[in-house]
Amino acid sequence: MKKKAIILLSGGMDSSVVLAMAKSEGFECYGLTFDYGQRHKVEIEAARQQVQDQKIKNHLVFKLDIGNFGGSALTDNIKVPKINSGEDKSNDQIPVTYVPGRNMIFLSIAAGYGETIGARDIFTGVSSVDYSGYPDCRPEFIESMNNTINLATKSGDEGNKFVIHAPLINLTKEETVAIGKKLGVEFKNTRTCYDPHEDGGPCGECDACILRAKGFKGLGEKDPVVEHFEK
Amino acid sequence: MKKKAIILLSGGMDSSVVLAMAKSEGFECYGLTFDYGQRHKVEIEAARQQVQDQKIKNHLVFKLDIGNFGGSALTDNIKVPKINSGEDKSNDQIPVTYVPGRNMIFLSIAAGYGETIGARDIFTGVSSVDYSGYPDCRPEFIESMNNTINLATKSGDEGNKFVIHAPLINLTKEETVAIGKKLGVEFKNTRTCYDPHEDGGPCGECDACILRAKGFKGLGEKDPVVEHFEK
Repeated sequence: MKKKAIILLSGGMDSSVVLAMAKSEGFECYGLTFDYGQRHKVEIEAARQQVQDQKIKNHLVFKLDIGNFGGSALTDNIKVPKINSGEDKSNDQIPVTYVPGRNMIFLSIAAGYGETIGARDIFTGVSSVDYSGYPDCRPEFIESMNNTINLATKSGDEGNKFVIHAPLINLTKEETVAIGKKLGVEFKNTRTCYDPHEDGGPCGECDACILRAKGFKGLGEKDPVVEHFEK
Repeated sequence: MKKKAIILLSGGMDSSVVLAMAKSEGFECYGLTFDYGQRHKVEIEAARQQVQDQKIKNHLVFKLDIGNFGGSALTDNIKVPKINSGEDKSNDQIPVTYVPGRNMIFLSIAAGYGETIGARDIFTGVSSVDYSGYPDCRPEFIESMNNTINLATKSGDEGNKFVIHAPLINLTKEETVAIGKKLGVEFKNTRTCYDPHEDGGPCGECDACILRAKGFKGLGEKDPVVEHFEK
C-alpha cells in the first residue's frame, strides 16, 4: 500500500511542482487547498485543475475565514505593490502581501487532517531562495513547526512522527521550473499572480509574477501562462 | 492604553477563569471561540454568556470545519466514554475525545488574529494536571508552539514577540475553581460536558464532567451548573 501524503496545493507553480514530486516519490497524494478569502480566487480553480491534470484522487478545499482578520493585501482592499510603480517593498521588509500566520495555520490544519486520514507526510512548496521575504517560508520556521506538530498530536506523541517536506526550500525558481518540466507539470494551468486581471491572467508586475518569470527566463523560455493569456 | 490579549474562550470552566485572570491583569480582552463542529455546541452559547457576564467588548466566533476530518468523539458519532460504564480510557492512553491538532490549530489562528489586531498576548486554559491526557495540553507543546509562532510571524520576526499564557497549566481543578470564585466567575453559566443532555445539562459521567466535579468537591462545594440543572 502506498504511503499517504498531504500536499498543500495553492494552484500556483511551486505547489503544483511539489505535488508532482510527491507523486513521483510514490506517495498517495491528498491535495489540501485553502479558500481563505484570498483576492486571487483563480488559485482555487487552478488547484482543481492540477488535481485533474495530475490525476490525483483526493482533494479537499478547506474554507478558512482568516481573510476576516484583515491586514493583508492578499485578502483586503490594500493595493498589491507592482514592481515598476515604485510601490514595491524595500529589500529587507516583509511586504503588505504577507498574510498573518498563514503557513502556520495551513500546516496545523494539514497535520490535523493527516492524523485523521493516516498521513504523516506533509508537503509544502515554500522556498526561501527566490521568495517574497515572508517569515513563514524559512527553514527555521519549518523545523520548529515540525517539532510543534509532533508535540501536539497523538501520532507524534506515540512515535509515529510527522515529517514536513519542503523540497523547494533551497531551490531557485529556475530549478523549480526545471523539475516541474521534467515531471510534466502543465504550467499553463497554474496560477501565481497576487492580483490577476478579470480573465484570470497574470498582472506581470507583482512580486509573485516577477519571481515566476525569473524561473522561466533563467531557462531561456517564456512562461506558458503568459503566452496563454496573450493569445 | 491597555495591552490587548486574545483569550481562547470555549465557554468551559477553565477558559472562563482564564478570561477573568487576563482581565484582572489589566488586558483588553478579545475572546476567540471556535465553532469547529463540536457536538457540544452549548459551549458556544456559554462563551457568549461569559462575554456578557465579564463585560468583554470583543468576541469573535470563528467557524472552522475541522469536524469534517472526523476521527474524534467530540465531532463525530463516536460514543463519548462514561466513567462508570467501563468504556473509559485506560490510564496512559489518549482518549477518543481527542480532536487531532486542535490546540495547535486554535493557537495558530489566535496568533494570526493577534498579529492583525495588535495583540501579542494569547491566553489559553490548558492544564496538564487534572486533564484528559491530550498531548496538546502539556507545557512542552505550549513552549514549542510559542517558538513556532514567533518564527512564523512578522511581529515575532521583528522582535515584538508573542507570549502564550497558560496560567492553569500547573494548577489542579480545585485551584482553578478557587481562583475563579475569587474573581467572581459565574460558574453556573459555564459549560464543560462533552456530551450534554438536550437541555444543555451536563451528563455527569464524561471525563470533562468528572474533572470539573473534582474541582468543586475539593472545595467542599457542589458545582452550581449541576445544581442549576437539577432544579
